[in-house]
Amino acid sequence: MSLHLQRDLDQLKKEILQLGSMVETAINNAILALNDRRPELAENVFSEEILIDEKEVLIEEDCLKILALHQPVAVDLRFIVVVLKVNNDLERMGDFAVNVAKRAVFLSSQNPIPYPPEFTDKMSKSIRTMVHNSLDALVKLDVDLARNVIAMDDVVDDVNRQMYVELQALMENDSSTIERAIGLLSTSRYLERIADLATNIAEDVIFMVEGEVVRHQTGC
Amino acid sequence: MSLHLQRDLDQLKKEILQLGSMVETAINNAILALNDRRPELAENVFSEEILIDEKEVLIEEDCLKILALHQPVAVDLRFIVVVLKVNNDLERMGDFAVNVAKRAVFLSSQNPIPYPPEFTDKMSKSIRTMVHNSLDALVKLDVDLARNVIAMDDVVDDVNRQMYVELQALMENDSSTIERAIGLLSTSRYLERIADLATNIAEDVIFMVEGEVVRHQTGC
Repeated sequence: MSLHLQRDLDQLKKEILQLGSMVETAINNAILALNDRRPELAENVFSEEILIDEKEVLIEEDCLKILALHQPVAVDLRFIVVVLKVNNDLERMGDFAVNVAKRAVFLSSQNPIPYPPEFTDKMSKSIRTMVHNSLDALVKLDVDLARNVIAMDDVVDDVNRQMYVELQALMENDSSTIERAIGLLSTSRYLERIADLATNIAEDVIFMVEGEVVRHQTGC
Repeated sequence: MSLHLQRDLDQLKKEILQLGSMVETAINNAILALNDRRPELAENVFSEEILIDEKEVLIEEDCLKILALHQPVAVDLRFIVVVLKVNNDLERMGDFAVNVAKRAVFLSSQNPIPYPPEFTDKMSKSIRTMVHNSLDALVKLDVDLARNVIAMDDVVDDVNRQMYVELQALMENDSSTIERAIGLLSTSRYLERIADLATNIAEDVIFMVEGEVVRHQTGC
């Protein structure tokens, strides 16, 4: 591999980590806005998303430039293709963070309703870890860490299901909670989608390193 | 461009159209299973999704092979990058079709609840047209058709919002409808996500042809 290609790939890794860090910030703020009832944090998420969108476009352009300039093959080519997909996944996570933040603004303006404590601790914590570790796995090509991310997705799915069961019971017992419960279920679904996207990234890392297609073994 | 590259790109177009056609079939069956209360059609969606997943992996491999073999530049390079993204989007549409089909099985086993007629006619029809036309726009590089797809997304968003308003009122009036209404709202959300993915494809087509980034102007 030429020194120029090596330099450009290192720069690309930095760029995707920067984007990842921006997305993590957006997700963390969206979760805080929701869990701590701090709607003012939603504004940070909205402004961060604009930067995330710009960064995504730049990274795609960088990938195209590297492909055109260096015409990489084998592992370098696959890395760039994975970065293109991860770039897309991160931008979508940013969109979901915005959706969570919007619901957080609404829910903060209403009286709180009870929901499983696992939502605030277990699910929120798992998602933050999954997003962070999936990117760590990408830049370190660490398949063990990637497998760990995939395993965590089950925790998130379980809590999401529990939210449906408990909030449905609440709505049935007290119809005045319906609008808030629907809003809360939406946030649970958005967070679950963020976890799915982190899982996609982890699966792509394993595929890149081991050539093993794990991405269609975990259901949807 | 070499004849070999031209031949491989033509073949890639055929492959992505085949995948698109499989995804359309899955979506159509999922919508029919839901609207016509025909749960037996859900099985077709589940088996189609397995084939969709396999095809997605093959198309990604084909893209990597073309990049490594021919090292295309300029418009051919961008086309392959767009195909990689569209491939991903189509596979996700297949996942959402499965989610709709699962809800259709549940809802068909229950007494029906009333919902806006726009859901079955306007929304379902728009989504089928959007998916079909976004792929048509891709292979024909037709930006007018792509813009038409983007415009249709508003129709889908409007019906999705209307579903929330009317089904929330229904739940508030009759708590026995809550589980079914939540199931129906989920299907509305999944269909709305399919429309978003078709919109992504259309935006990528415009970007490829005109170099104009429209994909972050339409909100999330």
